[in-house]
Amino acid sequence: MTDTPGNPGGSTQAAHPCGSGPSDGSVPAIHAIIPAGGAGTRLWPLSRRHRPKFLLDLTGAGHSLLQDTVERLAPVTATTTVVTGVAHIAAVADQLPQVPRENLLAEPSPRDSMAAIGLAAAVIAHRHGRDAVVGSFAADHTVADRTAFAGAVRQAALLAEQGWVVTIGIEATGPSTAFGYIHAGDPTDVPGAPDGRRVLGFTEKPDADTAAAYLATGDYRWNAGMFVVRAGVLLDHLAELRPQLAAGIEAIAAAWDVPEREEVLAERWPALEKIAIDHAIAEPVAAAGGVATVPVSMGWNDVGGFDALTELVAPRSEGPAAGAGVLDSVDSADGADGADGADGADGADGAETVDGSAPEAPRADVRVVGSDGALIASTSGRTVVLLGVPGAVVVDTPDALLVTTPEHAQGVKGVVDALRAAGREDLL
Amino acid sequence: MTDTPGNPGGSTQAAHPCGSGPSDGSVPAIHAIIPAGGAGTRLWPLSRRHRPKFLLDLTGAGHSLLQDTVERLAPVTATTTVVTGVAHIAAVADQLPQVPRENLLAEPSPRDSMAAIGLAAAVIAHRHGRDAVVGSFAADHTVADRTAFAGAVRQAALLAEQGWVVTIGIEATGPSTAFGYIHAGDPTDVPGAPDGRRVLGFTEKPDADTAAAYLATGDYRWNAGMFVVRAGVLLDHLAELRPQLAAGIEAIAAAWDVPEREEVLAERWPALEKIAIDHAIAEPVAAAGGVATVPVSMGWNDVGGFDALTELVAPRSEGPAAGAGVLDSVDSADGADGADGADGADGADGAETVDGSAPEAPRADVRVVGSDGALIASTSGRTVVLLGVPGAVVVDTPDALLVTTPEHAQGVKGVVDALRAAGREDLL
Repeated sequence: MTDTPGNPGGSTQAAHPCGSGPSDGSVPAIHAIIPAGGAGTRLWPLSRRHRPKFLLDLTGAGHSLLQDTVERLAPVTATTTVVTGVAHIAAVADQLPQVPRENLLAEPSPRDSMAAIGLAAAVIAHRHGRDAVVGSFAADHTVADRTAFAGAVRQAALLAEQGWVVTIGIEATGPSTAFGYIHAGDPTDVPGAPDGRRVLGFTEKPDADTAAAYLATGDYRWNAGMFVVRAGVLLDHLAELRPQLAAGIEAIAAAWDVPEREEVLAERWPALEKIAIDHAIAEPVAAAGGVATVPVSMGWNDVGGFDALTELVAPRSEGPAAGAGVLDSVDSADGADGADGADGADGADGAETVDGSAPEAPRADVRVVGSDGALIASTSGRTVVLLGVPGAVVVDTPDALLVTTPEHAQGVKGVVDALRAAGREDLL
Repeated sequence: MTDTPGNPGGSTQAAHPCGSGPSDGSVPAIHAIIPAGGAGTRLWPLSRRHRPKFLLDLTGAGHSLLQDTVERLAPVTATTTVVTGVAHIAAVADQLPQVPRENLLAEPSPRDSMAAIGLAAAVIAHRHGRDAVVGSFAADHTVADRTAFAGAVRQAALLAEQGWVVTIGIEATGPSTAFGYIHAGDPTDVPGAPDGRRVLGFTEKPDADTAAAYLATGDYRWNAGMFVVRAGVLLDHLAELRPQLAAGIEAIAAAWDVPEREEVLAERWPALEKIAIDHAIAEPVAAAGGVATVPVSMGWNDVGGFDALTELVAPRSEGPAAGAGVLDSVDSADGADGADGADGADGADGAETVDGSAPEAPRADVRVVGSDGALIASTSGRTVVLLGVPGAVVVDTPDALLVTTPEHAQGVKGVVDALRAAGREDLL
């Protein structure tokens, strides 16, 4: 961090940690980076390797989590770049016709979040300059209050322009042991970003007692991995902290928009270090005083499991399923089905019509008696009846059925592990 | 009851209630009558109109409840006669190749149990004489202790030979409100039938307090509708108590084995009174002192709902579903599927192979974590996972899924009623 020191000396004065950017006082639009990876194992059997969580409509709103993410960012975005696996690039393109094809970056293999976000930031730096403010946002979370979200991102962009690595600090609504926490310190006092606070450090997922103690102080927020930073600042931190990884990313980015891309990608990508951006950048830069956070309360949900999904899907107020949350299709309007059609790995659901388009899945007929607070997700089109099982979680797909409760949401991963161990790759 | 009075005067002496039969002291083999009707609504969606309970293998033993009933009776049976609806006669014939086709009586329409059992008794009387001892046994119950069952039936046959209408009195293992009760009085003191007792009366299904009071006396048994009686005695009682119904049945029976059967059946059957044998015969004859009971403890289960089924299906002791009861197929070895093939009313499961035979349904892959005491019945061949739902009941079929608990077993009928009201005849 010699060239972009993070407020050396840990001074509490409200100074930006490195040379000021080209700010004219207006809020810069950000270049959004959306890493779209991960199957969402804890949502099995709804999500699968070939039908990952971010391509699914898990809110019943008619659009996928990825589409929702892009729409949420639109008011604060100059450009959108999605980084995803080669297997999903066609489905992502189908779902995001408004995103130029050149902004969809295909990873040949997963190399963790630093490589994905770093590559996107480097490509953006080449295309838009190193002063461009980038922001990375997971493809598979939801935000209820988009105005609050946009406000926080704008403040983060102003802080980023001043050289901070900025993370959005999610208001902790309970002592969750499922998230890491951000420990916030003094205000950053940057004009236009009144909520900005210096970050004293990041924590791993705590135990319940520790989480409760965090909340009692009022200084801790959930870390949702939303980072806003100038592209140049990010790449300089990376060059300082992980020079080999930075060099590999830079080589690939330099070749991205020229004919040599595939050649360079094939040579350099597999050698990139697998590391999360939290460990590679956020933690060491925070320790050096270079990270700020913008706390926000915006109804964030990581859709991390069936407990989170149960909170997300509002119970129906009328009809035969009144009292229960129902997802009777998880195909987005623009076609998570398209993804299936492309990879043909969805068993009974993967049947295609003669013209090659995926058939519209029939809506499930869901009926509930004495089962308030239950969640039913069905992609099979069957009749599903819950009788006297309040709070149950029932996930009904053409080839697999899961019956559980929100309290056992974290156990779903173990089920998937057991299926893998039993050789049921067809179900993963 | 003038010609076959039921021990008039209520004398407690051990006398048979009407003229002695042709007993030589040996136990007469009985002519079994098995009325096979009723869809088993409380076992929906496992049982359907076109896939009734008695045709299903609900014990996992590889044979249907009907087949189990016939096998259980074999040691005490001279002949077996099944009375069933025309829609099921082919499936019954498939499942019971050992029963002569002429002993399968097809009802043109349901006229309740008195018509069904009366017709069979009358046909048997024509074929084997009025002294033949008949016994009626439901097609869809289970008995764990066949030796105890056979012993009770033999005692009942000896009592029947002496002119009694005999009912098997099931040991009440708890104060059930789902069954009617038999109130037993003094011993009948018939040689060879040491357990026989006079019946003081039958009760309707009691409330819980009344049921508990019954049990405390030691004199009450569950009424499972198993009656053993000489054919002539039964028909004489009927002629006395329901002369019009008796005349109709006699006319049909007289024509059964001659060319005029269909003509007579078409004319007389629809006019037969719809009444249960309990109301037509058992109750009035008991009031007149002509009914005896043989109490027995034999592990009887009426498979009347998912509470009963949960008790019936033993939890697996090993494998991925250890701790839960699993029915991963309900097709009997000789083919409940054959019934489907015939009526073609089973939706996705009804696909037939080119040669017209029904395909073998794939076995479900059932996995259970933290769900001891659960019951999983699956006919879909899917992977079914229960995670943290002890005692749950999950019934997974190709077109309908039910998730409930044993405590809500009686509510299943309401679900079926709601489906009918919603016009979902395809699911019934």
